[in-house]
Amino acid sequence: MTFKETARCPYSRARTGVFYTRHGPIETPCFMPVGTQGSVKSLTPGELLEMGAQIILGNTYHLYLRPGHELIKELGGLHRFMNWHRPILTDSGGFQVYSLASFRKIEEEGAIFRSHIDGSLHRLTPELAIEVQEALGSDIMMVLDTCIPYPSTPKDTEEATALTTRWAKRCLKAWRKKELLLFAIVQGGMSKGLRRRHTEELLELEFSGYALGGLSVGEPKELLFEMIEASRPLIPSEFPCYAMGIGTPEDLVECVHLGIDMFDCVMPTRNARNGMLFTSFGHIVIKNARYKEDQGPVDPDCNCYTCRNYSRAYLRHLFMARELLAYRLNTIHNLHYYLKLMEEMRTAIKNGSFLEFKKDFYAKRHNKISI
Amino acid sequence: MTFKETARCPYSRARTGVFYTRHGPIETPCFMPVGTQGSVKSLTPGELLEMGAQIILGNTYHLYLRPGHELIKELGGLHRFMNWHRPILTDSGGFQVYSLASFRKIEEEGAIFRSHIDGSLHRLTPELAIEVQEALGSDIMMVLDTCIPYPSTPKDTEEATALTTRWAKRCLKAWRKKELLLFAIVQGGMSKGLRRRHTEELLELEFSGYALGGLSVGEPKELLFEMIEASRPLIPSEFPCYAMGIGTPEDLVECVHLGIDMFDCVMPTRNARNGMLFTSFGHIVIKNARYKEDQGPVDPDCNCYTCRNYSRAYLRHLFMARELLAYRLNTIHNLHYYLKLMEEMRTAIKNGSFLEFKKDFYAKRHNKISI
Repeated sequence: MTFKETARCPYSRARTGVFYTRHGPIETPCFMPVGTQGSVKSLTPGELLEMGAQIILGNTYHLYLRPGHELIKELGGLHRFMNWHRPILTDSGGFQVYSLASFRKIEEEGAIFRSHIDGSLHRLTPELAIEVQEALGSDIMMVLDTCIPYPSTPKDTEEATALTTRWAKRCLKAWRKKELLLFAIVQGGMSKGLRRRHTEELLELEFSGYALGGLSVGEPKELLFEMIEASRPLIPSEFPCYAMGIGTPEDLVECVHLGIDMFDCVMPTRNARNGMLFTSFGHIVIKNARYKEDQGPVDPDCNCYTCRNYSRAYLRHLFMARELLAYRLNTIHNLHYYLKLMEEMRTAIKNGSFLEFKKDFYAKRHNKISI
Repeated sequence: MTFKETARCPYSRARTGVFYTRHGPIETPCFMPVGTQGSVKSLTPGELLEMGAQIILGNTYHLYLRPGHELIKELGGLHRFMNWHRPILTDSGGFQVYSLASFRKIEEEGAIFRSHIDGSLHRLTPELAIEVQEALGSDIMMVLDTCIPYPSTPKDTEEATALTTRWAKRCLKAWRKKELLLFAIVQGGMSKGLRRRHTEELLELEFSGYALGGLSVGEPKELLFEMIEASRPLIPSEFPCYAMGIGTPEDLVECVHLGIDMFDCVMPTRNARNGMLFTSFGHIVIKNARYKEDQGPVDPDCNCYTCRNYSRAYLRHLFMARELLAYRLNTIHNLHYYLKLMEEMRTAIKNGSFLEFKKDFYAKRHNKISI
């Protein structure tokens, strides 16, 4: 038993749980900061812990290409390499092959692609995806899946989904280190029926948890939530359910409502580096001239290191001057915002007040008085 | 009385002292990390304190151009703006006009230059240099000086030095906030006679301390030390003596030997960002392939955050992948190295063992066994 539900909202599918991993328990619903290349950009593990991060995500595609999974294995695994001693989830590389590689071709055997770094040719098979993740020593591994662009034809969607199932079976077979967990990924494009069928197919196999993939790829928001609603109720409550690559603060709230337990997204970290900062009142763009003389913190309701110590005027200056500290202070703020949002949702669910929480969450965003 | 000598090496001019400023005392000899644009690149004030920084340097030229001294004044001064509550020394901007501006012309009135950011035209006069530094709330201000290229003709050197004296007098006259200290800058090019004469001229005026400027501008090392020897003995022991823009670890050791109390240099921070790391055995270039699988710390003798937590292999990976954390971890290490070197020299001087310290310092560098 790796996952235990601890509370449930009486008016929605929102729930809390504890997910037990080799590197300690994770309280869900949780958000996983993205540490693409063995580092959550600009931050130390100590800062991540201080802001309440419980688990981070590593990218198999990136670490396979550079510095290489064999090197990381030889150096004692990814936890030791990057000095992060809490849980790590790694993706399978499928999405990055789809979004980053300079060339790619999907075959039955696997994905053939050229590295975005040096153009070298690689073949990522389900077996290699597991080998790499086991070498990294990931606590939670993901199966190799095929990414389905939006929009796609029903035929392409059907074929890619079927291939994902065959690859998932091969991943299960290749899985050696049973102390590491393995999640399946539901595809099915934007078809509710196919999503349902795929969920059921994968549930017949023995995975540690289930992820919903191929979402937030450009589809309208209604479709995103419809696809989650198609799959989520089918997944038994003893499994953690992870919505991959989602999303905005509003998306997180809606997806928690729909019963999602785990999230990851580059949005808080990437937007931080672009000067877009999340607040309880909506986001602000720090380079705007209106913040030039603004002595207040980014968010008066926030108690992160950045808000406790720096003014918007200073953050704007650092950003305009392209100072390295800008990226760091902005990242601290945005990740803190996301992690605090998850914590508030967990508390609200436990208190039976998740719907009130949601109402407040939206009300604050409609009263943008202070920004 | 702002400076008090506390110990003296019996065999050299090396000495320790305490320099009292509005934001607390500084133990000398000291090294001042450079915080060009209101930030020591990539670091927080907490990290600087943890590694033993007592005082940092801010650049008047940069802060005048962006975000502007008036804005910083309005926001409560540079200390508050950047959340650093220990002493700050600011340069006068003269050196950056010389090294960075896209156009410059020196007139009796001041330096006319074009901003390296937007090409806008500015005139930096001695009066403005003081006005800007007083607006920033610098603890230690520097007079506006003229920079003399190496090599220069005797005539140019003589004229620029004479102008520096006239500007120094105007700075003294413009100095309103007497709680902020003001240092003079000795020029004189590479002429011992002129250095001596200029030192004596400036000593007739009432400054809080004396800096040796126009050094480390491309001249051979022997000349650098000769110029310091020409001026240093003339400056009475009740004044702190600051060698501007110096230098390598070896330079610091030699200059402390010659009686210098204060240093600043971009070398530890800039080289960190270029992957050049200082160790007790000499420097290492972290991108070298030999460190690819190296599990050891940068310097086995170092107890900085970076060396306590990360391998050379990880630092190499971060650097190759251009991860923001690379610049930060490297900067922490290099600044820690510089600050620890100063601390070791202070201890050695107090213990009467400065010459033994020097011998050890060089011996380790000749036994590069571990790198």
